[in-house]
Amino acid sequence: MSDIDNMKATVQAYYDLFNAGYADGIANLYADDAVVTDPVGTPPKKGQAEILAFYQMAVKNGAKLVPQGPTRIADNMAAFAFTVEVGGMPAKDKAVDVELPTGGMTIDVIDTFEFNADGKVTEMKAYWSRENVTKV
Amino acid sequence: MSDIDNMKATVQAYYDLFNAGYADGIANLYADDAVVTDPVGTPPKKGQAEILAFYQMAVKNGAKLVPQGPTRIADNMAAFAFTVEVGGMPAKDKAVDVELPTGGMTIDVIDTFEFNADGKVTEMKAYWSRENVTKV
Repeated sequence: MSDIDNMKATVQAYYDLFNAGYADGIANLYADDAVVTDPVGTPPKKGQAEILAFYQMAVKNGAKLVPQGPTRIADNMAAFAFTVEVGGMPAKDKAVDVELPTGGMTIDVIDTFEFNADGKVTEMKAYWSRENVTKV
Repeated sequence: MSDIDNMKATVQAYYDLFNAGYADGIANLYADDAVVTDPVGTPPKKGQAEILAFYQMAVKNGAKLVPQGPTRIADNMAAFAFTVEVGGMPAKDKAVDVELPTGGMTIDVIDTFEFNADGKVTEMKAYWSRENVTKV
């Protein structure tokens, strides 16, 4: 598999694993020393343990990712736009450091992945804020 | 105008100025010492003179930007997805260091802007490659 094909497949796997609620599978896409900043401007999660805990919380209430357009590939990076559909979220289950409504909402997000030579994700940045949250 | 409103308005102005073919107006969105990397992985353009020259070339053949979904705002950054519609481009007019067809094409792109305290763009990164080019 070429690097480009691997990067595209990893983004697709990210969607599929997230929508299956499989946090261990998502964490496995990341390198051991990876850094996840979601959203940009909040404290990053560093390393497998923090990243796994983040995704366990993120998938807990059945949120779904709906791709918006194709994955962009540039050098050793991928960028992809999607909408998160959240049915509802008790405050105690919130994975992110952003004030959110507790009922149903959609969130428009763009993520970037940086890859290492082994094809693992070393850095994820998520671009969104309350500005991108729509109550439904 | 709040910082968030300024960032959103700057992205909208970027679309509008690009589609009007007004390179000077685009360059004016950037800080004097800004850096533009388009696409990520190619040599950056640094400072007003290089950035203006880049956009003068980029708009020369009437390429149009079509937004794909809303602008994402995160901290002092904006991320936005769009398609570039290119009618045709002689090789000598190419603004980017990427091998491209010379006929009509669309290119799926995601850009990020980083803003300074004055509301100017200090860094632009464009995520795309030949992988995201579709001949039309």
